[in-house]
Amino acid sequence: MVLIWVLFKSLVLNFVFMLRIVGVGLDDGEVTQKGLEAIERSEKAFAEFYTNTETIDLELLEEETDQSIQKLSREEVEQQDKILESAKSSDTAFLVSGDPLTATTHYDIKHRAEESGLEVEVVHAPSILTSVAETGLNVYKFGRVVTLPENMKPDSVIEHVNKNDSVGLHTLILLDINYSADEAAEKLIEMDESLSDRDVIMIERANMDDQRIS
Amino acid sequence: MVLIWVLFKSLVLNFVFMLRIVGVGLDDGEVTQKGLEAIERSEKAFAEFYTNTETIDLELLEEETDQSIQKLSREEVEQQDKILESAKSSDTAFLVSGDPLTATTHYDIKHRAEESGLEVEVVHAPSILTSVAETGLNVYKFGRVVTLPENMKPDSVIEHVNKNDSVGLHTLILLDINYSADEAAEKLIEMDESLSDRDVIMIERANMDDQRIS
Repeated sequence: MVLIWVLFKSLVLNFVFMLRIVGVGLDDGEVTQKGLEAIERSEKAFAEFYTNTETIDLELLEEETDQSIQKLSREEVEQQDKILESAKSSDTAFLVSGDPLTATTHYDIKHRAEESGLEVEVVHAPSILTSVAETGLNVYKFGRVVTLPENMKPDSVIEHVNKNDSVGLHTLILLDINYSADEAAEKLIEMDESLSDRDVIMIERANMDDQRIS
Repeated sequence: MVLIWVLFKSLVLNFVFMLRIVGVGLDDGEVTQKGLEAIERSEKAFAEFYTNTETIDLELLEEETDQSIQKLSREEVEQQDKILESAKSSDTAFLVSGDPLTATTHYDIKHRAEESGLEVEVVHAPSILTSVAETGLNVYKFGRVVTLPENMKPDSVIEHVNKNDSVGLHTLILLDINYSADEAAEKLIEMDESLSDRDVIMIERANMDDQRIS
């Protein structure tokens, strides 16, 4: 029995590689102990930061985990599927900012990895979805979160803000990288003039020493 | 000028103590690097876990941070105000499960500490509010979060579930410690029969190795 199990293990289990999607939070030092271990234990490590501004010092993480981390472009993650390709032949860590499952693109990678038979481990981390409470607003009283891209005017954004409003909930509006909040606010009012009397609280560089709330 | 500044600093600044509210996540190893440093740097450390089941091994944290951590009861935190009392005379770390600002009681402590002139640092951590995405539901599509206590039937819970529902949003219902989800579901249906045809996904021991989703 033992022999068969050993044989089975070497034949099958060794060929199931692990994809570890590791959240690194919003600032240096916000990766968890689990996260550091996950990066250390992997054979390869990649990172993407196109969903957020680059607030994480990858070199520091490389030193701490004794692991070389390759930064990927959006195209390499989404079109070339570098993460899944790597995870098919080696234990792979994929570093993403914030908490891993809040971005649709990471959720999609998890789903497809599982479908192709890989084992997936998610390592959670601090996220803007809870840091928003630093504004003084109760995190329980937020409705649907929306993203406002710089070069688009999606009607759905206004629709969700108004729906949240109709049941007394705040809306967290995530802005595209480097999109100024002033311009974003102007665009929203242009899209729906009734928004012009809303109060807006802005949080910049959340979780960082120079975090600003205005 | 320099002398006056030094005098000012020794007279005033040294008497401003720091309260560090440190999230330790939902499982061992989910405290961040910032969190470990915050515990190490403090003179005193307290923890409360009455807002969550006890999933964190405090002894392990004591070893890692070389700090003695005192566990407080609900009464000591809320009635006796042990945290604020300590922070008035020494740099104090207050360890709480999940992310610090998601529980109203911790938010309140932060607010009162700031009002009494203390400096407050919040160290963020993984939270159930993002781990809920492990269920497969999109974290962006949740509405207001509610808490269902075991011994109460607050109408507001049903009200918020229905409001979220009316704008197409899921509801995360946090249960009291050790309150069985089956019993909670029965109570909800008893309170509002129209809830009986709702789908429910249950997540237990979130972020832990034996996490269960059903």
